[in-house]
Amino acid sequence: MNAQLNSLRINPERLRADFDTLAQIGSTGDGGVHRPSLSDAHLAARAWFKEAIQAAGLEFSQDGAGNHSATLHCAPPGAKILLLGSHLDSVPNGGRFDGALGVVAALECLRTVKEAGLSLAANLEAIDFTDEEGTLVGLLGSAALAGKLTQEEFHNPRGGREALLTGLARAGLSEDGLLNAQRDPTRLAGYLELHIEQGPRLLKAGAAIGVVTTIVGIASYHLTFTGRADHAGTTPMADRLDASQGASAFTLAVRQIVLDEFPDCVANVGSMSFSPGAFNIVPSQVDLSLEFRAPDSSHFKRLETSLIERAQMEAERFNLGLEIEFLGRHQPAPMSQTIQDAIRDAARGLGLESLPLASGAGHDAQSLADICPVGMLFIPSIEGASHSPREYSLWQDCINGANVLLQAALRLAI
Amino acid sequence: MNAQLNSLRINPERLRADFDTLAQIGSTGDGGVHRPSLSDAHLAARAWFKEAIQAAGLEFSQDGAGNHSATLHCAPPGAKILLLGSHLDSVPNGGRFDGALGVVAALECLRTVKEAGLSLAANLEAIDFTDEEGTLVGLLGSAALAGKLTQEEFHNPRGGREALLTGLARAGLSEDGLLNAQRDPTRLAGYLELHIEQGPRLLKAGAAIGVVTTIVGIASYHLTFTGRADHAGTTPMADRLDASQGASAFTLAVRQIVLDEFPDCVANVGSMSFSPGAFNIVPSQVDLSLEFRAPDSSHFKRLETSLIERAQMEAERFNLGLEIEFLGRHQPAPMSQTIQDAIRDAARGLGLESLPLASGAGHDAQSLADICPVGMLFIPSIEGASHSPREYSLWQDCINGANVLLQAALRLAI
Repeated sequence: MNAQLNSLRINPERLRADFDTLAQIGSTGDGGVHRPSLSDAHLAARAWFKEAIQAAGLEFSQDGAGNHSATLHCAPPGAKILLLGSHLDSVPNGGRFDGALGVVAALECLRTVKEAGLSLAANLEAIDFTDEEGTLVGLLGSAALAGKLTQEEFHNPRGGREALLTGLARAGLSEDGLLNAQRDPTRLAGYLELHIEQGPRLLKAGAAIGVVTTIVGIASYHLTFTGRADHAGTTPMADRLDASQGASAFTLAVRQIVLDEFPDCVANVGSMSFSPGAFNIVPSQVDLSLEFRAPDSSHFKRLETSLIERAQMEAERFNLGLEIEFLGRHQPAPMSQTIQDAIRDAARGLGLESLPLASGAGHDAQSLADICPVGMLFIPSIEGASHSPREYSLWQDCINGANVLLQAALRLAI
Repeated sequence: MNAQLNSLRINPERLRADFDTLAQIGSTGDGGVHRPSLSDAHLAARAWFKEAIQAAGLEFSQDGAGNHSATLHCAPPGAKILLLGSHLDSVPNGGRFDGALGVVAALECLRTVKEAGLSLAANLEAIDFTDEEGTLVGLLGSAALAGKLTQEEFHNPRGGREALLTGLARAGLSEDGLLNAQRDPTRLAGYLELHIEQGPRLLKAGAAIGVVTTIVGIASYHLTFTGRADHAGTTPMADRLDASQGASAFTLAVRQIVLDEFPDCVANVGSMSFSPGAFNIVPSQVDLSLEFRAPDSSHFKRLETSLIERAQMEAERFNLGLEIEFLGRHQPAPMSQTIQDAIRDAARGLGLESLPLASGAGHDAQSLADICPVGMLFIPSIEGASHSPREYSLWQDCINGANVLLQAALRLAI
């Protein structure tokens, strides 16, 4: 690249102002934000983004999935579009960096290129994807854009059918709109996302930038252990069919299986719900949320088999019934080598040490991996914390990430 | 007793009609009833009882605790009162026998004595105690009558402060009323209750009547295991502080401790609640309901120590915090030998086999055990089921129980 392009940098004060403004929207007062998909706070963050796009003199658009975009027309007619983006929704009581940093950095890249008056070979689009975190469905906006949604996915969404319908209505969106939000993949030059690592590896390695090699596969299940409601005072222990025993034994086993046999994988039992839930009644039913992740297809499949077989074994051991409901799966998604190279070179050009690593978290990039080249870069997370108010990254690392995003985008768009 | 008294029997058709009417109030359609304390269904059952008392020409009264009574003045001025009773509330989705049978049988005994025009040495009172099951507080009406309630017990009731206030308001009751519902113990000749066994022992022994020797002690706790909310994809398993692990290990241990070391005791983890409760967040907090029971004070104390120490051990094992909140305790309550003898003799007089046994369930009798002679008789429960729609007793056993109640009451009241 030429010297003018190589020396281009984002405006850190402007990035900081945007970031801090967003962090106030849905703030939980402890450094975190609570912006579940299409909640009031999330809608307020979306409205802020729209205003910021318009204030920057960029073209605003919204597709049928509610994805919000800023477009910078900086290329000749007929040129493809390079997407830069992330998401503004958060998990319940999450952190202020996850998603938000990538959106404000993408916007800042477009403003920087616009101010420099550059002509590139691809147009740039900063995009905020709807419902990345999965309060409703997960990777919803990016899957819609990739044309991967089917009517079936709306029947039994992760957050429940009612939450989905309520959220869509609140945002003025519809299932039809989602199903028709597909973009023409031949118009896309690629997708590039800046995100916090959400893990401890960059800090441990002393690297400023993570070059994502693959996004792990994720699957989720709803398991129901069923026993029998009995009087908890008069029914001898040995005669009980106590659903809590199967659910508890399984929850302990999940952790042990991953620790012992799948060191590159993770799994989580994020919630249990007891029925009828009284002090003096033996639990007749425990509903349990299971999620697990693996970096490659073979481990993914073996882990899934291992966990489901163990659930069945624990149910049998305590004479319980077991219902297994499969909720969804994203296969492991390898990142484009071209984009990985562009990120690595951009970091090197900025004098920053980079480290190739797999993403343990799911991201919208995996929705798009089949339809265009995709890539992601990470910056270090203090204590590896994420999905928590403790989520934190040094501001210098955020600036570095935004500049690598800009420089990698320029490398891909010239 | 003389032949006239010995041959007195309740009216089984009238008892059946009352029982069946009550079973429809709050019916869940599967043989069970849902009448949590002071819910709409419970208030409807209470209203039915009031009408039935008045229809029978008995004196109706309500005390400050909302206990409903029918009084039969069948003794000379200044005579004591013999209480017969039980409760009309149920656990959530409970059975139609627990409590209700004892109330309709008590009412039927008064009607039978009234019709026979008997003069006795004590007046008879059929009483329906408020909130026996503990949806709100547990043994609430009987504790109020015994003068055992203090303001402190309202601060953190088992079902939550809000549920208590809402329920009291719905029934037109007040905390002041409860605190002032104490009866003069010198006026009470005793308390006698018919109840289903809620366990399998009478059926196994082939006995028609259980003579309760003691009511087990019950204690309840709220335990909170606290860890740290982290991203469930990016946080390595070994680095997590997962509150579900302590709660699950404890739940398994509770059962094993009782099975291995306390064969005459029981314990139950009736509910767990996960925070924040998302698929992709490591649980930072699990709240857990613990209840346990023992027939005598020494086992009671040892079991309590054993369970609490185990909770602390499991919290330490998984590097979790643990908050232990003591909710309440009822000491084991021995029954009056005089009343046990009266029940045994009444059964013998009716040609029924009786069996002395401890009650694994708590009952209002334990509230009154300190202030007057108390006793209970059980009839067999099919499959020992209770606190469940499967709760069932043969109708002939119900009739037998009501007749033993009548005959025992006559023995105590002459």
